[in-house]
Amino acid sequence: MKEVDFIKSFFDEVRETVVDLYKRRSDLGSSTKSDPTDYLTQADLYVQRCFHERLQKEFPSDFLIGEELGFSNYSDNVDGRAWIIDPIDGTANFLRAYFPIFCVGVAFCINAEISASGVLVPITGEIFLAEKGAGAYMNGSRLSVSNTDSLEKSCIQVDFGRRESRKERLSYIIPPVLNSGLVRCYGSAIMSFVFVAVGSSDAYVHSALKPWDLAPGILLVEEAGGKTSQIDGSPIKVFGKNKGVIATNGIIHDELLRSINEYLKHV
Amino acid sequence: MKEVDFIKSFFDEVRETVVDLYKRRSDLGSSTKSDPTDYLTQADLYVQRCFHERLQKEFPSDFLIGEELGFSNYSDNVDGRAWIIDPIDGTANFLRAYFPIFCVGVAFCINAEISASGVLVPITGEIFLAEKGAGAYMNGSRLSVSNTDSLEKSCIQVDFGRRESRKERLSYIIPPVLNSGLVRCYGSAIMSFVFVAVGSSDAYVHSALKPWDLAPGILLVEEAGGKTSQIDGSPIKVFGKNKGVIATNGIIHDELLRSINEYLKHV
Repeated sequence: MKEVDFIKSFFDEVRETVVDLYKRRSDLGSSTKSDPTDYLTQADLYVQRCFHERLQKEFPSDFLIGEELGFSNYSDNVDGRAWIIDPIDGTANFLRAYFPIFCVGVAFCINAEISASGVLVPITGEIFLAEKGAGAYMNGSRLSVSNTDSLEKSCIQVDFGRRESRKERLSYIIPPVLNSGLVRCYGSAIMSFVFVAVGSSDAYVHSALKPWDLAPGILLVEEAGGKTSQIDGSPIKVFGKNKGVIATNGIIHDELLRSINEYLKHV
Repeated sequence: MKEVDFIKSFFDEVRETVVDLYKRRSDLGSSTKSDPTDYLTQADLYVQRCFHERLQKEFPSDFLIGEELGFSNYSDNVDGRAWIIDPIDGTANFLRAYFPIFCVGVAFCINAEISASGVLVPITGEIFLAEKGAGAYMNGSRLSVSNTDSLEKSCIQVDFGRRESRKERLSYIIPPVLNSGLVRCYGSAIMSFVFVAVGSSDAYVHSALKPWDLAPGILLVEEAGGKTSQIDGSPIKVFGKNKGVIATNGIIHDELLRSINEYLKHV
């Protein structure tokens, strides 16, 4: 089975259960002692376990990296065939947000290069798939990034991450906040890459992301015609430490990098 | 007819057409010369015209203030019975966002005090209604704000507004960004108030809002048990100039005001 088809069949299998757990987390009455977090944990563990079981059957010798269940250890350079999964990205949104901005993300790497990836948005049922060199698709329709041609006209997504590192991250975020047309912050890194890939936003800026936060989304952006890089313009490392993670429609990429680097010189 | 029932029946009338225009804006093929903006303009004008016609039949001597069609003029203090409408709030989201974070907002004032208000979320079909002293409701279910008890644990929404005033607005936004648990920015002021009222977020901070951006939402927050104020703690003026607009679950209100005022002292 092709890796991208494996991703799609996995999404088809888990979708219904994730939607069910999501709905139950909000139907909690006063008669139950359950906490919404219990349903999130169940969804997280279910999705990753299901992926692991399928992987053992289909590609038993492949390496797996994931946020849960003791699969979160990896080295700076992972050789050979490796899979990365984020069972639920946007966990705080799963728990509380009015709009269900969360997803399941998967990426497949060969020698630390992303070769295929996919994102499932459980509530809308939309499946995003990309293969290196073969384009990015949403439910079979080819995706294309926006054609916004200046920062001034752009809609840029930023992310503030964990509170501990908020102050340091502000230096990356203030330039796009000051110079772009519109600013958004949705609280799911993978969904933010998807929004750039579908052209509903023109860029996404994050100061630091883990492999499972970035790998499922960056190939989608690139295969939809966009561009990704670190803040110095060098390629994003899937497993290594990055100086910022930037994804854009390509057209505004250099302008955005310049505005951040200009600002960083003065702080 | 009670004002709140008038609002509800108006929402019931316009919903289908707004949903239809929204769907058509995204189905634009290459064979059409239409721009998504045309559908937004149609929706904006249709909603406000429909409201105006209904108002002339039901409450013909009431004053109307709205964003469109020459109804945007008002004085600092509007005496007597007045209605405020934002036909589509979250216009950029209507045009481009993956999740349909936009709404129709209405408020009814007596002597510049909000007496009833409502918000329609066209795509989900949910209707939010509040009457002064009688609670806030979503499709008939009573609403209650969150019980998050510290800024550190809170999810706070901020808004960056127009580019021209972005730099000045940052002073209001940096303190919640640095001190809260999670930050979100959705690009619709009225929806942001709704998210506080339903408890999916703990606060919303904006440096400046027009009557139609704030009036439909602040009564919802207050009647759901939350609190609203300017940055100095004084009540928000519906028609006058405000120094910031803050809406919270009430519990973290003072802590949030302190953190902003503390920061403003040093800039």
